[in-house]
Amino acid sequence: MTIAHPGTVYLVGAGPGDPELLTLKAARLLATADVVLHDDLVPPAILTHATPALIINVGKRCGRKNISQDQINAMMIDEARRGLSVIRLKSGDPLIFGRAGEEIDALRAVAIPFEVVPGITAAFAAAAALRRPLTDRRHASRVSFSAGHHALGSSPEPASLAAPTRVVYMPGRDLTPIAAQLRSEGLPADLPCVIVSRASQPDQQIVRTTLSHLDRFAPLPAPGILLAGESLRETRTGELEALAEYVTESVVNQSQSVGL
Amino acid sequence: MTIAHPGTVYLVGAGPGDPELLTLKAARLLATADVVLHDDLVPPAILTHATPALIINVGKRCGRKNISQDQINAMMIDEARRGLSVIRLKSGDPLIFGRAGEEIDALRAVAIPFEVVPGITAAFAAAAALRRPLTDRRHASRVSFSAGHHALGSSPEPASLAAPTRVVYMPGRDLTPIAAQLRSEGLPADLPCVIVSRASQPDQQIVRTTLSHLDRFAPLPAPGILLAGESLRETRTGELEALAEYVTESVVNQSQSVGL
Repeated sequence: MTIAHPGTVYLVGAGPGDPELLTLKAARLLATADVVLHDDLVPPAILTHATPALIINVGKRCGRKNISQDQINAMMIDEARRGLSVIRLKSGDPLIFGRAGEEIDALRAVAIPFEVVPGITAAFAAAAALRRPLTDRRHASRVSFSAGHHALGSSPEPASLAAPTRVVYMPGRDLTPIAAQLRSEGLPADLPCVIVSRASQPDQQIVRTTLSHLDRFAPLPAPGILLAGESLRETRTGELEALAEYVTESVVNQSQSVGL
Repeated sequence: MTIAHPGTVYLVGAGPGDPELLTLKAARLLATADVVLHDDLVPPAILTHATPALIINVGKRCGRKNISQDQINAMMIDEARRGLSVIRLKSGDPLIFGRAGEEIDALRAVAIPFEVVPGITAAFAAAAALRRPLTDRRHASRVSFSAGHHALGSSPEPASLAAPTRVVYMPGRDLTPIAAQLRSEGLPADLPCVIVSRASQPDQQIVRTTLSHLDRFAPLPAPGILLAGESLRETRTGELEALAEYVTESVVNQSQSVGL
């Protein structure tokens, strides 16, 4: 069973916000660590796992302004050198769209022992909320994750199966550049596009639209995530009815043959 | 606190294999469900959370051959209709590179209540094992996930920052087609490429190479995952030394100014 070790830094994913989406490992580390340095997006309910640790908000939007990345690096190193177990708690997973690369380089540079504990990143929480897959062998064989309105970049895809599902973290308030990019890639006007605001949290909001209406979107509370792709399309009514007949028949056959 | 409800199906991510990387929610559902239908890749240690449920291996490689996707759909529906709480437990996250889309369509077609619970997918467990980020604002602003040796597809990227980190699930025994595809995109011969076999499990193996040597790779035990991209590069010794001086200095300054 995992416990936090003295003099060690743990880069831990807090998951998307729902405290139940914390991993067992993260919960056990939080319960045994001396110091927790957390981002602003980590909700208070997750931090209750961390008592009796010293909990420090190093997020950009906290009251104490201007804690730089260098200062965060220095705090981790300083506490670990004092022999304390330190958790650097990041929302989602630590290794995507954070600055873990810089924190890891800083820890390695001074030979502080460290470990990375993955967490559920927002894309998977958003897909779970939508109850639609990110990939589907029938519609989308790939998924790409980018952040912000820049760097969505990819090129037109010839076959529809090859068109990846796009996930854009922090898409910003104005979705016009993203919509323009997706249109320039030749994606259809009726491409399903969904914004999930505060995925997995009690105030989660979901707005479904299509590529043709994407740039007319009213902003939702941060953090938000945009998903666009054929795998997100709600099954059409006619298809569902045909499937219902088929599945009902399968149940009968299967009960006979497997005997459950 | 989550408990499994009668007549409901839960599509649950079991995570990459380490039982401690199960979410609290998945553990609580497993502890309260009546029936668990699991993939072959879910390790026994995770299934211990599921007692006293009826546990059925519906994986493709189990002794009972030829359980089709239609039969799995029918089993979920049949058990839920009998008023039982049913967990469909999938390795990793249920909504990527599985057949959750088909299972969801089947459940919707016959109006069975269902919920999706995300899990840690192998890519994040592999990155955690490597202790390298999937994205890095200095090297790679995107990451793309594909499966198998086909459908890696993307087009040459002009700028290096725009070159996404590539993650290929189940890359297969022969990496020649993937190496050829990456080379055809103009990626450099020294591009860091890493195979992680059985990420997060006790018999995890990591092999690091470069694009130029990727096709000479000996196969490792499944499940394996390939990661390729600049963000995976180990920091060069000279850079680490320069960083060490800088960070040490930061610690001194920061201790004075923040007082920790």
